[in-house]
Amino acid sequence: MIVVMKLSANQDHINAVARRVEELGLKSHVIVGTERTVVAAIGEKRNGERETLESMASVDKVVPILAPYKVASVETKPEPTTVEIGSLKVGNGNVGVIAGPCSVESEEQILETARFVKVSGANGLRGGAFKPRTSPYSFQGMKEEGLKLLAAAREETGLSVVTEVMTPQHVELVGRYADVLQIGARNMQNYHLLQAVGEQPKPVLLKRGPSASIDEFLLAAEYILDQGNTQVMLCERGVRTFETHTRFTLPLATVPYLQERTHLPVVIDPSHGTGITSLVPSMCRAAIAAGCDGLIIEVHPNPSKAMSDGAQSLPPDLFASTMQECKKVADALGYHLADAS
Amino acid sequence: MIVVMKLSANQDHINAVARRVEELGLKSHVIVGTERTVVAAIGEKRNGERETLESMASVDKVVPILAPYKVASVETKPEPTTVEIGSLKVGNGNVGVIAGPCSVESEEQILETARFVKVSGANGLRGGAFKPRTSPYSFQGMKEEGLKLLAAAREETGLSVVTEVMTPQHVELVGRYADVLQIGARNMQNYHLLQAVGEQPKPVLLKRGPSASIDEFLLAAEYILDQGNTQVMLCERGVRTFETHTRFTLPLATVPYLQERTHLPVVIDPSHGTGITSLVPSMCRAAIAAGCDGLIIEVHPNPSKAMSDGAQSLPPDLFASTMQECKKVADALGYHLADAS
Amino acid sequence: MIVVMKLSANQDHINAVARRVEELGLKSHVIVGTERTVVAAIGEKRNGERETLESMASVDKVVPILAPYKVASVETKPEPTTVEIGSLKVGNGNVGVIAGPCSVESEEQILETARFVKVSGANGLRGGAFKPRTSPYSFQGMKEEGLKLLAAAREETGLSVVTEVMTPQHVELVGRYADVLQIGARNMQNYHLLQAVGEQPKPVLLKRGPSASIDEFLLAAEYILDQGNTQVMLCERGVRTFETHTRFTLPLATVPYLQERTHLPVVIDPSHGTGITSLVPSMCRAAIAAGCDGLIIEVHPNPSKAMSDGAQSLPPDLFASTMQECKKVADALGYHLADAS
Amino acid sequence: MIVVMKLSANQDHINAVARRVEELGLKSHVIVGTERTVVAAIGEKRNGERETLESMASVDKVVPILAPYKVASVETKPEPTTVEIGSLKVGNGNVGVIAGPCSVESEEQILETARFVKVSGANGLRGGAFKPRTSPYSFQGMKEEGLKLLAAAREETGLSVVTEVMTPQHVELVGRYADVLQIGARNMQNYHLLQAVGEQPKPVLLKRGPSASIDEFLLAAEYILDQGNTQVMLCERGVRTFETHTRFTLPLATVPYLQERTHLPVVIDPSHGTGITSLVPSMCRAAIAAGCDGLIIEVHPNPSKAMSDGAQSLPPDLFASTMQECKKVADALGYHLADAS
Repeated sequence: MIVVMKLSANQDHINAVARRVEELGLKSHVIVGTERTVVAAIGEKRNGERETLESMASVDKVVPILAPYKVASVETKPEPTTVEIGSLKVGNGNVGVIAGPCSVESEEQILETARFVKVSGANGLRGGAFKPRTSPYSFQGMKEEGLKLLAAAREETGLSVVTEVMTPQHVELVGRYADVLQIGARNMQNYHLLQAVGEQPKPVLLKRGPSASIDEFLLAAEYILDQGNTQVMLCERGVRTFETHTRFTLPLATVPYLQERTHLPVVIDPSHGTGITSLVPSMCRAAIAAGCDGLIIEVHPNPSKAMSDGAQSLPPDLFASTMQECKKVADALGYHLADAS
Repeated sequence: MIVVMKLSANQDHINAVARRVEELGLKSHVIVGTERTVVAAIGEKRNGERETLESMASVDKVVPILAPYKVASVETKPEPTTVEIGSLKVGNGNVGVIAGPCSVESEEQILETARFVKVSGANGLRGGAFKPRTSPYSFQGMKEEGLKLLAAAREETGLSVVTEVMTPQHVELVGRYADVLQIGARNMQNYHLLQAVGEQPKPVLLKRGPSASIDEFLLAAEYILDQGNTQVMLCERGVRTFETHTRFTLPLATVPYLQERTHLPVVIDPSHGTGITSLVPSMCRAAIAAGCDGLIIEVHPNPSKAMSDGAQSLPPDLFASTMQECKKVADALGYHLADAS
Repeated sequence: MIVVMKLSANQDHINAVARRVEELGLKSHVIVGTERTVVAAIGEKRNGERETLESMASVDKVVPILAPYKVASVETKPEPTTVEIGSLKVGNGNVGVIAGPCSVESEEQILETARFVKVSGANGLRGGAFKPRTSPYSFQGMKEEGLKLLAAAREETGLSVVTEVMTPQHVELVGRYADVLQIGARNMQNYHLLQAVGEQPKPVLLKRGPSASIDEFLLAAEYILDQGNTQVMLCERGVRTFETHTRFTLPLATVPYLQERTHLPVVIDPSHGTGITSLVPSMCRAAIAAGCDGLIIEVHPNPSKAMSDGAQSLPPDLFASTMQECKKVADALGYHLADAS
Repeated sequence: MIVVMKLSANQDHINAVARRVEELGLKSHVIVGTERTVVAAIGEKRNGERETLESMASVDKVVPILAPYKVASVETKPEPTTVEIGSLKVGNGNVGVIAGPCSVESEEQILETARFVKVSGANGLRGGAFKPRTSPYSFQGMKEEGLKLLAAAREETGLSVVTEVMTPQHVELVGRYADVLQIGARNMQNYHLLQAVGEQPKPVLLKRGPSASIDEFLLAAEYILDQGNTQVMLCERGVRTFETHTRFTLPLATVPYLQERTHLPVVIDPSHGTGITSLVPSMCRAAIAAGCDGLIIEVHPNPSKAMSDGAQSLPPDLFASTMQECKKVADALGYHLADAS
């Protein structure tokens, strides 16, 4: 850490900061500049010394040197992590595609969707059984019945099932049916839930909160990793900004930025990232070109009858053509994306 | 709802939208403009017809007319709700002040704090026993031991205790010791938790998520109200914006805006809202002048030794002088704020 | 326009609004809903009737139906506009690449850069002669001397020159040397400057302001178009959000979104959009895959000696490999990008 | 500056950075931490060495120690600057109130407004003669005719006139009639305009850009100060965030934050800051309580007939009652605000 003193700090203040640094078990090193003095604190850990020093009246600011996350860092594990479960392989050159409806609505709907996304080249099936909805008056999902339908769709198509878990009590139940447990954006900092999915063995798809910084995102992953589950996929699904023409703002620079810092695979959600069906295909192509490790896409056999998120779902034909274009981009750049069958 | 058709929409498209509106159980009304046609859908409810219509290809956008929340609305209950529990009274001209440390750290720390905040005029005592922390490596709170210390501080001072609950399984436990259950900003859309606090009888302080819209905030309150708990306080604690000189950006216009729309009391948290001790006093005064129903303020006997949030905590003397200034503003404008004793 | 009345509005209020609508020269049409009444105002123009109606006390909100821009709209001109000047062709399947240093620094620097960007396939040369700098103490550009060097580089390489103009008085001067006049992000709403470049014949590259909405961006273009200059390129260069790990947040969904609404070509600036050299190549590829009509990229022979923006400039070898990857993506998707020579 | 090396940096990289620091005329000082090395660069100036060092491949980040502005800083001039011109006195305990319509529309409108804002206690008259409008199709102001009417209103009421100047060519003209030249938010980084108002003698009211950081805001002021004009007022008028229920988000913490860093007075614009008439009174009170040095408020004799910004203008009676409440808050806290007459 670098502790920047205020211009008004005198030698007593500087000594007090140096003393506090030593009390925290760090080594202090005073550097006198032409206008200001800084105190370097050597031996920085990741547990809150910063706040302590920042609250001293003579201190202007404290600049941490280390990233706050550790297990998620490429500095700890330089080789990329690959998440592989059943038909789905994500990371290290493999671009996994998870597709399906926002919500599981009926046996017919989920089976029909599973069949056509598989034919078009998807490796995983998404579908919400427990649905976090902004309004208590909106459809909340088919719950365990929905999980059973997802399992039936896997049975028939072989697609790995990705579905959301909303609360620690449901982790065991959802884990019984799902292949991958999804943590939704609203729950990115629901720490008891993160710990609960960290304690079970299935891979986790962790969505970035709509206003989470990258450090906060990686620290949320760190909560899961810290419990011993190393199969974590990071999902960028758009952030909340002043822009209102799209549902969220999708920053694809997250892909290379994360890949420089973490070994965990990075999945893009262009459906929530834009909220508009007609923008999804080009964002799928762009995500592949940016080097993402996976895509998660909302697809519905009949979007205008969807019980949720119809306005951002791809109908079957548009999903098929999007997959073909993605395949072209992946091939051109040497990434592996499954063929349509 | 108003359904705006695309410029390219022809009569068939318009008919199809009108038909879909009727299928949804609403009455349709077509208005032909000079450039575009709109279809008014009369009889709007609050359960997702909007998305359905938005996903039709000939539709440009759908504009809801009704607010999505209902029980929280002044249209449902025009008279202001007052939350009163023990020493704390919030709403309808009473400005309740909840003060205390970020975290309960020891018996001495919480008792000392409780005594001096009470003397300065606080009505409630805050203090975290279960702490949501961005990093898994930070101090996570004293847990039940902390709750017991809070209860002991209430015993001695008579201050009502406000403390956070992080997960549904802890609601019963926290409710055993606390007077008010706080839902933190990270959990504003943790719907199982909202429902759990909605099912128990103690008042709830609901913090706004850092990127939640006002509609989302009121819908989160609606989840609690919908379970039958009507004692909900809304807490503005700052939003995440491009500004980095403060920890969050504190929009005090939330106070009058919410008061025009909801009967629930509005509490301001200037500590998280700024993140900087020296900015807290003026934001306390400003919040009172804006007409808030309560303040929740971080105070610590020795901020530079605090285990969390020291950089935004007021030391005792600054809290005392801040309360005196707040009292002057409240008196000048006719709001009721307790006297220092 | 749709005027939504407050719940509390009575028949007199509704009549008053209808009357005001008629006074504005529009036709009114009252629709009585189950909870609220709305007044449709038919014949909407684009000159501010909205504000007038919004300021009436019984009105809850006013929803415009028409986009506020007209000449820029695909509804006015459905076929895409191509900007072509010298070696540079942008739009309608042609992806123009404009590359060069942030600032012109010396004859050697600009000539060397021009040569190698041309060899790698660039069609235009960028370089700042008049530099808008956040601080008055930073290097402000070589001014007319810089313009002469740019013209010399064009002379030698045949590359079209794109350079910024900062104030109306300089329009004539810059236009004497440049092929394309760039309006920087800080000046997107400098209306006198927009009008000045609208009155001269050279094409204009208009950068989006860092917090401009899409409507504001298109209205800024409309100021130029309205003066008769139809050769306008829109440049997305990133928006300001809560994200701090990149210099700006680059929303590539701007590309398809704009292409649905305007005939003007859309250029991406991944250098300012990320601010970090190592992120630029993947964002170039992603922008091509998203369907952009052009790229503008900062390139410097020796970024660590650059007088501005070194941290986001590509060195020659990285620019060359980036162009090769872009070419692969363009070829795969059927866009035309020039070959390296 | 503190240069943080990447974890992968070896001794050669460290030496290269230290060498580069010395080449820049600074003293280098290497600190070897437990995980990383940092190089302190002593003798930092304010002209771009940072970018140079950041572009070196072995450097992770560069942390400046000095604020980038100088003349605006309290470190240069600790005593507060007071701006005084005619009836208007802003700063150092004097809260100046500037009120008037968005646009000058007619002689009757501006004279009537001037009379009643003066009676209610305003010290300055605002009114736009040259209007920056988002759309080229909106009313652009009465131009010189409007300036003459403002001067006539000053003649009659004695109120100092504050009005916007949009482009360098108009500085002389506007300065002939106005007492204070306003730089609008869209022009905060129009550097030629800043320099032009810096070269003339009248005070300047500089509005913060809607996405400007505080450093950028103070550097914009620095452009004016640097030309020799020391009479600069800083105006917070709201920032652009994800919030849409208000026109902008008004962060009142700007007031104490700026007052800790600069000697220049801070004025609040609650009209643009909220965009909604009914929210303006409480934000005026809150701004006073926060310690602002001035208010600039839109007032119109008949907001629903206003040619611009009617939805955020106060009618006469609401302005009068707002001023009375502000006076109570100012009196309670010991600030000086003029009496109503």
